[in-house]
Amino acid sequence: MSGAFTWLVRRGLPLVPRPLVRRVAMRYVAGETLGDALKTLDRLAGEGAMATLDLLGEEVTERDKAVAVTDTYVGMLAAIAERGADANVSVKPTSLGLKIDEAFCHANIERIVLAAKQQGSFVRIDMEDVTTTDATLRMHRDLATRHGHVGVVLQAYLRRTLTDIDALPDDASVRLCKGIYIEAPQHAYRAYETVRANFLYALEKLIVRGVRVAIATHDEHLVCGALALLDRHAVPRERCEFQMLLGVTPDLRRTLLAAGHRLRVYVPFGRDWYPYSTRRLRENPEIAGHVLRAMLGRR
Amino acid sequence: MSGAFTWLVRRGLPLVPRPLVRRVAMRYVAGETLGDALKTLDRLAGEGAMATLDLLGEEVTERDKAVAVTDTYVGMLAAIAERGADANVSVKPTSLGLKIDEAFCHANIERIVLAAKQQGSFVRIDMEDVTTTDATLRMHRDLATRHGHVGVVLQAYLRRTLTDIDALPDDASVRLCKGIYIEAPQHAYRAYETVRANFLYALEKLIVRGVRVAIATHDEHLVCGALALLDRHAVPRERCEFQMLLGVTPDLRRTLLAAGHRLRVYVPFGRDWYPYSTRRLRENPEIAGHVLRAMLGRR
Repeated sequence: MSGAFTWLVRRGLPLVPRPLVRRVAMRYVAGETLGDALKTLDRLAGEGAMATLDLLGEEVTERDKAVAVTDTYVGMLAAIAERGADANVSVKPTSLGLKIDEAFCHANIERIVLAAKQQGSFVRIDMEDVTTTDATLRMHRDLATRHGHVGVVLQAYLRRTLTDIDALPDDASVRLCKGIYIEAPQHAYRAYETVRANFLYALEKLIVRGVRVAIATHDEHLVCGALALLDRHAVPRERCEFQMLLGVTPDLRRTLLAAGHRLRVYVPFGRDWYPYSTRRLRENPEIAGHVLRAMLGRR
Repeated sequence: MSGAFTWLVRRGLPLVPRPLVRRVAMRYVAGETLGDALKTLDRLAGEGAMATLDLLGEEVTERDKAVAVTDTYVGMLAAIAERGADANVSVKPTSLGLKIDEAFCHANIERIVLAAKQQGSFVRIDMEDVTTTDATLRMHRDLATRHGHVGVVLQAYLRRTLTDIDALPDDASVRLCKGIYIEAPQHAYRAYETVRANFLYALEKLIVRGVRVAIATHDEHLVCGALALLDRHAVPRERCEFQMLLGVTPDLRRTLLAAGHRLRVYVPFGRDWYPYSTRRLRENPEIAGHVLRAMLGRR
């Protein structure tokens, strides 16, 4: 990829007309409506993949908005149950009011967890930047202990992650990912190989603790390392799953499914697709070519 | 950094006027006197760091000189005790007469170890190049068995290190480092990733043997790997410590201290600062910028 393309994606994306970004970005999101998301679920089910639905939208500063997001999630769980789909939901604490008031956010997540419990479904509480880590783990611990049907996310780039594993509640369910936010070096490892190494250290510790793990990565090196650890510790296939984002490494996804592994796709949808999908675009340098082709009308 | 700067540091350093080198090099040494070193100890104690004092100076060829170095170390231990500082000392066998006569060197180190024992302190026998390895391990084994209060260093780049762990005396204390001397390939691994891997293999073997370990590295990848091993084997925090050189990666030092790890800083001082600090300069390519700024009088 030429330097100009790199520049385009890293710095110049805001200058690219929104309709063009939309055309490329739509590979990462299911669409703007719940109906779009449910169609994507059906398509993934046809591949043998499970899904987790994410309503796009991040930090919310108004209570009404956070309550509306909560209502939408309760409706999503009902729609999933009605369809009989093998899917659950992922929620972001800041979109449910964490930055307004932790107790308010906690109550909103609890409402979603109780709806999931009623339907035998599951809520994954996403992990955001380090300003949210303590509160997110606290809310998860309380809800997991009292209701079950809820899990959390740990990020391999954080220095604290191995210690956080010690404090997980019994019978926890954890999605392990590398972590995507830009964090200060006192909080996070930055070197690529170090984050990879810590991912496998954390995964092994989770497995040894008997935690149900969701291995969320598109890094084939980590897929390989994870498979070796699952094998070494004889983890039953129903106790673990792989997770990948919609639109990212679909070939690796199909390879794992073909080998009989459980795999869940993170399916974001909603009108607020711009920040999520441009973050994805920035992460994937190859995508600059797609942006250019879209600009040239060749897609 | 430009090629000219790299050249300056790697090859041209002897051409740089000594006062300029001194100005930059002083970040790596506490000063010329014991008083300077004790001040540095106080500063580090303020950060929560422990220290080990090293009198600069390497291979000694005259007995009088080696006896004088021994006397200085005995005096250093007294000064540390008087100040109540959380510090010990590190000694180099070649500066205590190893190249003159092993028994003479052994007697000198024994005098320092006995002084340390009297004060409840500790002596770390540094490891130098491979011509000294056997003698150093031999002296350490004898002194550790008879007196305690002494530990040794193993170097991860040496092919023999895993075997040397087998021959350690009971209740040993080992500082593990990568190794810094230029060794022939029959003695040492050279590839960066191989040395890193052997560091973690050796560390795990030391931990499993119950050796008290001092993890001496500025390589964050190894810090990450070491933390995972300490965690996996549930090593109590008081049984291990990290070690870093004065002036190198102070941010990583503070990060580990903030996370509650024990950390000891290697504090060299003395009039013989030139060889040590230029070796440090050569190891740190970023330092060329400092040298240049010093030459231009902008520091």
